[in-house]
Order: sequence, then structure tokens, then C-alpha cells
Amino acid sequence: MHFFSDNATPICPQVMAAIAAADQADHGYDGDAWSARLDAAFSTLFETPVSALWVATGTAANCIALATLCPPYGGIICHEEAHVEVDEGGAPGFFTHGAKLMPLPGDGAKLTPATIAAKLATIRNDVHQVPVRTLTITNATEYGLVYTPDEVAALGAVAKAYDLGFHMDGARFANAVAHLGCRPADLTWRAGVDALSFGCVKNGGMVGEALLFFGPQAPARTEEARRWRKRSGHLFSKGRYLAAQILALLDHDLWIANAAAANAAAQALAQAIPGRLIHPVQANELFIRLSTDEAATLRAQSFDFYDWGTGAARLVTNWSQRPEHVAPLADALVPLARG
Amino acid sequence: MHFFSDNATPICPQVMAAIAAADQADHGYDGDAWSARLDAAFSTLFETPVSALWVATGTAANCIALATLCPPYGGIICHEEAHVEVDEGGAPGFFTHGAKLMPLPGDGAKLTPATIAAKLATIRNDVHQVPVRTLTITNATEYGLVYTPDEVAALGAVAKAYDLGFHMDGARFANAVAHLGCRPADLTWRAGVDALSFGCVKNGGMVGEALLFFGPQAPARTEEARRWRKRSGHLFSKGRYLAAQILALLDHDLWIANAAAANAAAQALAQAIPGRLIHPVQANELFIRLSTDEAATLRAQSFDFYDWGTGAARLVTNWSQRPEHVAPLADALVPLARG
Amino acid sequence: MHFFSDNATPICPQVMAAIAAADQADHGYDGDAWSARLDAAFSTLFETPVSALWVATGTAANCIALATLCPPYGGIICHEEAHVEVDEGGAPGFFTHGAKLMPLPGDGAKLTPATIAAKLATIRNDVHQVPVRTLTITNATEYGLVYTPDEVAALGAVAKAYDLGFHMDGARFANAVAHLGCRPADLTWRAGVDALSFGCVKNGGMVGEALLFFGPQAPARTEEARRWRKRSGHLFSKGRYLAAQILALLDHDLWIANAAAANAAAQALAQAIPGRLIHPVQANELFIRLSTDEAATLRAQSFDFYDWGTGAARLVTNWSQRPEHVAPLADALVPLARG
Amino acid sequence: MHFFSDNATPICPQVMAAIAAADQADHGYDGDAWSARLDAAFSTLFETPVSALWVATGTAANCIALATLCPPYGGIICHEEAHVEVDEGGAPGFFTHGAKLMPLPGDGAKLTPATIAAKLATIRNDVHQVPVRTLTITNATEYGLVYTPDEVAALGAVAKAYDLGFHMDGARFANAVAHLGCRPADLTWRAGVDALSFGCVKNGGMVGEALLFFGPQAPARTEEARRWRKRSGHLFSKGRYLAAQILALLDHDLWIANAAAANAAAQALAQAIPGRLIHPVQANELFIRLSTDEAATLRAQSFDFYDWGTGAARLVTNWSQRPEHVAPLADALVPLARG
Repeated sequence: MHFFSDNATPICPQVMAAIAAADQADHGYDGDAWSARLDAAFSTLFETPVSALWVATGTAANCIALATLCPPYGGIICHEEAHVEVDEGGAPGFFTHGAKLMPLPGDGAKLTPATIAAKLATIRNDVHQVPVRTLTITNATEYGLVYTPDEVAALGAVAKAYDLGFHMDGARFANAVAHLGCRPADLTWRAGVDALSFGCVKNGGMVGEALLFFGPQAPARTEEARRWRKRSGHLFSKGRYLAAQILALLDHDLWIANAAAANAAAQALAQAIPGRLIHPVQANELFIRLSTDEAATLRAQSFDFYDWGTGAARLVTNWSQRPEHVAPLADALVPLARG
Repeated sequence: MHFFSDNATPICPQVMAAIAAADQADHGYDGDAWSARLDAAFSTLFETPVSALWVATGTAANCIALATLCPPYGGIICHEEAHVEVDEGGAPGFFTHGAKLMPLPGDGAKLTPATIAAKLATIRNDVHQVPVRTLTITNATEYGLVYTPDEVAALGAVAKAYDLGFHMDGARFANAVAHLGCRPADLTWRAGVDALSFGCVKNGGMVGEALLFFGPQAPARTEEARRWRKRSGHLFSKGRYLAAQILALLDHDLWIANAAAANAAAQALAQAIPGRLIHPVQANELFIRLSTDEAATLRAQSFDFYDWGTGAARLVTNWSQRPEHVAPLADALVPLARG
Repeated sequence: MHFFSDNATPICPQVMAAIAAADQADHGYDGDAWSARLDAAFSTLFETPVSALWVATGTAANCIALATLCPPYGGIICHEEAHVEVDEGGAPGFFTHGAKLMPLPGDGAKLTPATIAAKLATIRNDVHQVPVRTLTITNATEYGLVYTPDEVAALGAVAKAYDLGFHMDGARFANAVAHLGCRPADLTWRAGVDALSFGCVKNGGMVGEALLFFGPQAPARTEEARRWRKRSGHLFSKGRYLAAQILALLDHDLWIANAAAANAAAQALAQAIPGRLIHPVQANELFIRLSTDEAATLRAQSFDFYDWGTGAARLVTNWSQRPEHVAPLADALVPLARG
Repeated sequence: MHFFSDNATPICPQVMAAIAAADQADHGYDGDAWSARLDAAFSTLFETPVSALWVATGTAANCIALATLCPPYGGIICHEEAHVEVDEGGAPGFFTHGAKLMPLPGDGAKLTPATIAAKLATIRNDVHQVPVRTLTITNATEYGLVYTPDEVAALGAVAKAYDLGFHMDGARFANAVAHLGCRPADLTWRAGVDALSFGCVKNGGMVGEALLFFGPQAPARTEEARRWRKRSGHLFSKGRYLAAQILALLDHDLWIANAAAANAAAQALAQAIPGRLIHPVQANELFIRLSTDEAATLRAQSFDFYDWGTGAARLVTNWSQRPEHVAPLADALVPLARG
């Protein structure tokens, strides 16, 4: 059984059914009936007018958002372990035409208002230095921690005070919402978020993520984002197959159900080995201390996962895992917990 | 019945079956078993070592190819009606960081060695002018004409003489090969082509096109292209679903069968109204003279298509249309042919 | 005596004196006393609030203007023989991050409202095509012709109607104003021009051109342009030496006097050989039909100039040439005029 | 008397004389007699074939070098207080089309092989991460410290081992060489440096810095750099005035004499207040602890300088200051040293 990544998982049956249902003639690009329903579906979910674009990947969603929020000569504050900083192969520099990522530290890959304010204070307001224009956070973070609505709102207040665009990388937004049990609106636009990468693929989708814009500037930003989407080769010829997947995940809150299942699986594992957790487990990722020998022992039992540097491992659960599926690994972890 | 675009068409059953077959756990990105088979499958098809990358769209395939073949300060010769020039929303400028498209005229959207040589002769070899570094053609062209292997080879000779990278936009490469009945190798690398956008979506696929590199520089260009793919957000998390589609099209030459069907449907229509053809019909597109009234008459009979400026229309056939499917339109065209 | 280019000429004595006068300690970059006077000096000259930036070259002035007026996904209409299209080594693509130059034809390198409107009509308003956002003209043109205030205003009306930023490349703006005898304001902002590259180096300066912004959007554009200036390496450490040169040219209308001298020299030559002129002579450039033998004869008499293709030559006069200086060439041309 | 910056200083008489001597007709751009002599002059100085380009500013020199050494998808290791990271307004991102600066810590703004190797070890060799391709250091550093030939060679060995291009920002290269008394070759190409920004303006020039390339790849890199120079608007129309300044500084080792004077002035100040130095004084910058009151006292005596955060100040000496010129400040510092 693999715990490599939620990307390594099959797609969920409802998504596959939606693909099949969309398999008919319709207009190309985003002129089809499915794509036409996206804005309304997300507007209902978020209780406010939302504009939504499908794109190929989370990297594209994040970077089109950043290109829309930040001029090429601007700076983007992010966490030093953020996906945009560490794992997107320089895509933010490509999409923004060279805007500067400004990575900051913070426990569990979370940023705080104080850290951001301290950074802002170091930047002179002259043309020799890069002016910060955008803030991006990841929720749930790269270490599986969840920003609460209050925490996001505190960051949103900083963004507003300094006139920064505010983006949230929600590759695991579903896991965050499922953990918090909050309204999606409270975790986003009500807390000051301007743009959200709403992750689908890790949560049961096949291809396609959604990029959402909120607030009074949303129409202008969306129009610009549509240009970036085409310009970066992300305007699929048969967009209906992407839109259908996204709609399927929204339908009857499947996205929440899938994320809740993944979170529950992670909790089951966490409870098996609480003393080894490097970070609290709130979403669907566990980072645990694990010796090389212990890792080998687990792998010998057919449990697959990635090492996380030396002496640690990352385990990722997913939508398809019910408690009974992960019980064998939990059982295998218990003896280690005693060690 | 619609003749809007081959993008407006459902995907073919074998592709859907391949997607279902790939719906299992595997490594993310392009680390999966399907992606791993792409190079070999295309190498067999093209009778030479080929490296192949899946990307989201034809725009992405074309522009990553151009970014690999042309430095930011270089120029790219294309036809003035080429997709890269007219219909990609400036994507070539984005991917190449501002390289200059140099559009040239030519009947049926085809370039000739003479036109290219004449253009090259106007450019001084100094830093004030943009040096041409790349040539791109579309086969079949935007008007449905097909370059023969000899024609491509003549352009390839120009490219070689002037040290230009040579790219072919093969959004309808299948239709070209099906029309010619030639070996794919003869139409590409044996004729000097360095990179090919191998179209899948118009030919029965759902999402995903293939970008191929040939020749001794292919390994270095592929390595660079992999960087561009990630950097532009085209490295899908679950690449196996794209690779599986492409492999399905290659399997048992489905790609040729599909294209041959589309071409045959176009021929059936062409024969119904030969006097109205603006261009010879070789692939799966017809451009016909058609008055506003005639267009309205056809649409009243439930035949849908796009106007092509004033007094003309474009009809596109596709893989799913058998002769009996298009017979009603052919019948409806015959009276016009007499007019 | 050379007629290669106004770049090939020494700088005028008042500019050299101004450099010497500025040779004292002051704050770096544009924090000095000379740079501080630029806005006021140009505001007086143009009878409206103007913001002015010095940059190294006309290419930089043009391209920073374009970057300010056009988003990366936009298009820029220019003449097909415009300096930005033909002779800036792709700099517009670099500064604008890939915006698309859209070259149009026109006699004497001049654009007309009709040509522009016809081009605009061909562009669909969808993301597949590049939306025109900017218009740039050169005055005097690359063939030495001068747009009148009425002609500029007619183009300005088109720009306003289509919401295009309007830039004027004024590498030889002085020659145009000297020819017309008009107020600089009438040829620029009153006619709808948003940004002007105000040429200095061809008109007696050593290094440094001025980029001017007019109108209500000038403050925001200037702030952005200051970012581009720094970002492109054009914020000189000792800017006072550039500002001093520009101020010297403005002082007592030296810029007009210099341009008038160059124009007069061109007229003296034009009158010697009226039947050979390819374009009317309005500024300081002559394009004349000249056989290879005739060119050789002139060069044997120590008159230097550039061939302009085959069978033609370009002669450029400059600020330092008084009628008596060019009389020998005029005398040498007269016999050709008879031929 | 000001100690703001070496940019705030007049130009030296020999440079002014060279400008006057170059004030004659010649070919434009870099086609003149002065520009033609640059390669030879630097080749003699560096005892190896060198290609040299003048550009407007140090920012341009640095960033054209980086664009030549690093692909857009690559990374550039620099010090976290390097000029390229902190004070160039994002110009590296602009010129390199989004390559990633990777800032590292180090005392006195110096990098060490160990720090670099540690950073390199953290980067996976996959497309998700940005591959390091270039190393850039500043000599003398932003804190006025000087890398010795051995120190540069140790970094050069790292660069070679990891196949990184190696650039040196030599805005104060003259001060470094004057301090070390070494051969310029030993501090650059013999130590593995591929490209050097050779500073002129801080050392007595008016406008224009030199960008030098060394080694077997120099011809190809220079050809590319010439494209970048034009493309970024740095190909001056009257380049002879820049080349003449640079040649004047090289003539009879004026560059060393000027730098030695500045260094000596700095030493004179350092000896007045040794206990307050934050960094050893090796070039022409002093960073001293200085209370707000002390700063005010000095300014009341007409000594001008910049604060360096709170409780510290930066004093920069320059080529025009002889010991007797700085003696008044030294005298004023002595009482503080006792405090």
C-alpha cells in the first residue's frame, strides 16, 4: 500500500462518471456547458460572486494567480518551504516575468503577521529595492498544518494594510476545510483572500485544478487571468472534461467527503505513533521521525512512502483510504511508537 | 450535426478505455509506467530514437518547442496565418521570452523555400536586427493543405543551410500522414524536422498532446523542454492519464485510422460541392464560398459550422464521422454546387 | 565630410559646457539638482505637467514607454519600417515581456487612421488573439517625413476610440517641430500622445535621451517607468551628467536651433537634386536614387554616406552643419541632378 | 565634505580630457576607434584574450553577465547582501527572464565554498527544483572586504566542480586590486572567473562600465552579450564617449592610482577610530558604530554620510580624496574613538 502522495492515487468514481457524461460534442475551449456552470457552482459554495478558471496543474493555478496579483517588478512574500518557492521549478519567475519571491521562515510552513511585518520594514521605498505587492500562503501548509479563519484574517489584515494582493495555494484546501469544519468563505474572501488555487487532483480528480478570484477586483483579474491561461498554453481544447471533473467534486460536497476520508486516515496513523510526529497532524500528511532501519522494516511489509531527509519520513493519505485500509500500517507503526 | 471543429467532438472509445485502464495507483508526474513507454512507442513509429513529452495543449507543445529551438533574442519564421502567429494569444512571445515571430505570406498557409530565402536576405547580420534562428510550419496547414515529404525536405534544406531549428506544428499531422500514405519519418526527421507537435486531441483524445524531438540534439533539447514544461505548469500530477491516451492512439495505428476517417468525410463533402472550394481538400477541413443566405439555409437544416469571414465558411470533419454520417450534409450541399 | 548619421557627429559646445558645469559632487542616481529640474523644464516647454526620465538610448526610451503602455499579452501597432520593428534587436519584446508588435504598411513610414482601423477590425475579441493596446509612431519618420499636428490628432482619436496607449518615438522630434514651426504641445499631448521619446543624442547630445509622460495617467505611468528604468539597468549612478545635457538642449531652445540647422542643411542638398528624391525632405534625412557609379564618384570626393539598398542612398545632415558646410556636396550633386 | 558614495563624486580630470578628445565624428554605436581598442587594452591588462563591452551601469553589466551565464530556468547563488539581490530593483529577474537568485549568508558579505556546497546539496536533481547554474560574488564586497586570489580560486573550484558559470561584480574591483597589490589575472580568470563587471564610474568615470569575458567560452558569450546589450537598450549611439573614459582609466594604470587613493583615505579614517569598525577596512568603505548623537555632531561639522540602520554609519571615500582632505574627518572621529 502506498503513502507516497495523493497524486499517486486513482481518481474517484464520481469524477470518472462525470468525464463519461461529458463525452459528447460541445463547443471547444471554455465555450461548453460545463465550463459555463463553474462560476455559479463556486459562487454558491463561497456565498459570493466568484469567477473560476480551470487550468492543468496547481503550479499553473498558483502562478497565474501570482501573475495577476504582482507586477514583474514586484515582490511576493511566501514561506521558505512553500511549494512556489521550492517545488515549482522556477514557474513563478516565468509567469510573473521575474517578480521576486521573498521567502520567510515560520514553524510548520506557516507565516505570521509579525514575520511579514518585519520583512516589510526592511524594504526601502525606492526603486533600488523590490516592492512587495503580493502575499501567498498555503492552506493546508506543506507540513499539513491548517491556518484557521482567524489566522488567515490576521494575514489578510496585513495584506490590506500594505496593499498586497493575497493568494492562497489550496492544493489541499479541501483538507483544511474538512479539518476546520468551517465555511469556505470564512477561510478565504471574508479573511481577505483575493485568489485561491482550489485543488482537485489530489482530492480525487484526474486532470484540472480551479483558480478562483474573489472581491471587487475579481472581474478585472479574471479577464487578465484568462489571457495568462491562453498565453501559457492552459486553455484546453476540450475544456468540458476538466469542468465536469471539478463540478463533480463540488456536487453534494464530494470534495469535503473525500478530504475528510483522507484526514481520517491520517489521524488513524497519527494515533498509532503520536510520539514520533514532527508536526501536528491536521490534514492528510504525517511527518514522522523514522530511522533508516525502521523505514526498511515498513517497506518490507509493502508500505511505500518517501523519506524526508534523513531520519524522517512523509506519509500521505488520500480520499480512497478508509480506516480499515490504513489499519495495517497503523498496526505496523505501533511497535515503533514504543521504541 | 456539427462541423465546427475537431475539438468539439467526443473522444474515441479506445482512448476512454485507456483512461480507465490507467486508473490505478502509480508514481506522480511522469514517473509512471505509461509515461515511461512513450519514448519507445514513438521511436518505433518514427524508426529513430525519439524523446516525447506530453503537455496540455497544442499551444504548449508548439511554444515549448519554439523556446527550445530559439533564444529570446532570435526570430522565428512562420506563415502569416499560422496558429502560432494568429491564434495562440501571444503564447510564443511568452514562452520564448520575447523572440520575434516573422510571418510570411504563401498560398494555402504554406511556406516555400524562395519566400524564406527572400526574407533571410533582408536581415542584416548585426545586433540591430533580430537574427532568424527557427522555422516553423504547420502540417496539415491551417487551410487543410498537406506538405509532402519533398516539400518539407526542401524547407529542411533551407533550415540546415541557415542553421535554423525546424519545428512542425502537427495538430493535424495524422491527417497529413493519412492523406499522403507516407512514413511518418519521411515527413519529419528525414526531411530535417527537429521537433514535432504531435496532435492527439483533435484526433480522438481528451486532453494531452505530444511534443517530440528528433536527431542528435534531441537529448539536450528534451532536457531543456522538461524544464520548460515544469516551468510553464504543464507537468501534470497524474501524467499517466495523458500518456495512456497517447499510447492508445498509437496502438494499432488508431491515430491513422481516425485521421483517415476524418479525411474521407471531408472528401465526401468536397465531392458534393467541388466548384465552391477555396482550397483543395487534402485533410479534414473544407473552406468553401457560401453566401449568408446559403449558410442560413444549411443551419436551418441543423448543420453547424463557423463562418470564415464574409461569404465563406469552414467545415471541419472528425474521426467519428463515417461517410453515412456526413451524407446528409453532402446532399444539402449539392444544390448549392449547382448555384 | 560624412553624412552617415546624426549619431556620428560630435556633441554641441553648449552640451559639453553643461557637462563640465555638472562636474561636481551631488547625490547619486536621480537625486541631484539637475535631474530635479527636468520635470519643470519640460512642463514649461510643453505647457502642461510633464514627468521626464533620462535613459541611455532611444531604444530604452521607446521600450520603457511601451512596457508602461502595453501589458505583456497585448499588441502594439507600429509601422513596418519603424525603428522598434526593424532596428532595435528585439528590445520591445524584451521590455514588454513578449507583447506583439503589429507592423502595418504606409507611405514614407507613416501610419494612417484607415490602416489602423482596418487592422483593428481583423482582430477578434477573444483570448486566442492578441488585443491591441498601444499605438506607436515615429515623428519625424524613419524616412524623414513629418506628421503634422492634425495628422497626429487623427491618430490620437483612433487611439482614444480603441483605448490604446499612444507613444511617439521622437528620436528626431526636434527636426519635426523645427520643420513645422508648431508648439510642441500641439504635436503631442494635445493630439492625444501619452508618452514621447524626446531625442537628444542625434541633436547635439553625448549620452542620454528623455522619456516624457503626459496627461492624467502620467504620474502612475512614471512611477512604473522608474521601476522599469532601474530594472533594465538604466538608472545611471551619476545621472546629473545626463540631466545637464538635456537641460542644456532645452535652454534658450537650443534643441530647435540645432534641429533647424540640420533641416536647413538637408534642404540645401534637396534643392540641389530635387528629381532624385525618393521622399520629400522635411527633416534632416535625404533618400535619393543614386547609381553605384554615382555613389563611388561622390565618395571619391570624400563625401561619406550609407547605401540604402541598391540604387539609392541615405544622407543625414546634423546640427553642426551650416549651409556653407554642405555646399560642396550640393555642388557635387547638381551634375547628377541633370543626369 | 561628503562621504555618501563614490557615485557622488566628480569625474577625474583624465576622464574628462578623454571625453573631450573623443569629441569628433566617428561611426556610431560601437563602430568607432575607441570602442575598437577596448578588447586589446583589457587583454593586455589581464594577460589573456578578453572581450569587453561598455554598458550604462553596473546593474546592466552584472545582469547581462548573468543572462549570459544562466538559463531562465536556472539558479544563481549570491550573497544575501549582494547588490544583485538587494539593490538592483529586480533587474536580475528581468535580464535573466526569471532565473532564481539563491542568497546565502556569510560574514562581511563573503561567500565560502562550504556554504555553497551545503546549498547545492539541498537541491534535488529533478525538474521540480531550480538547478544552480551560476555563482556570483562581489569583490570588494558590499562591506568593503576583499576576496584574495586564493579565496576566489577556492570558489572557482566549486564552480568548476558543479559546472557553474562564475561572475564577479567588480564595481570596486579596482579597490580590491589596489588593496591586494595582485595581478588582475590572478584575481579573475586564473581563479576561474568567467565574467567580470569592471567598475569605472565609482572610480572616476562619468558614465559607462565595462563587462569582460574570459576563457574559451568568451567568444560565444560575448556574441550573446552583444545581443543582450542591444536588446536592453544599452548600445549607445555614441559609444566612443564611453570607450574613451574606460581607456583613460586603464591608461598608465590610472584605475589603480584612483582606487589606491580612495583606499588610503579610508585607511586614514579607519586608523582614527579602530575600535568602532564593524568590518575590517580593506577597500574604500567604512562601516562604523555611531550613535545618533555622534552622527549629528559630525554632520554639524559638515561631514555628510549615510546612516546604516540604527547605531551605525557608512562612510565611503573616493579617488579625489587625498589624506589631507580626509584629515578633518579623521580628527573629528578621534574623540569618538575614545568614547
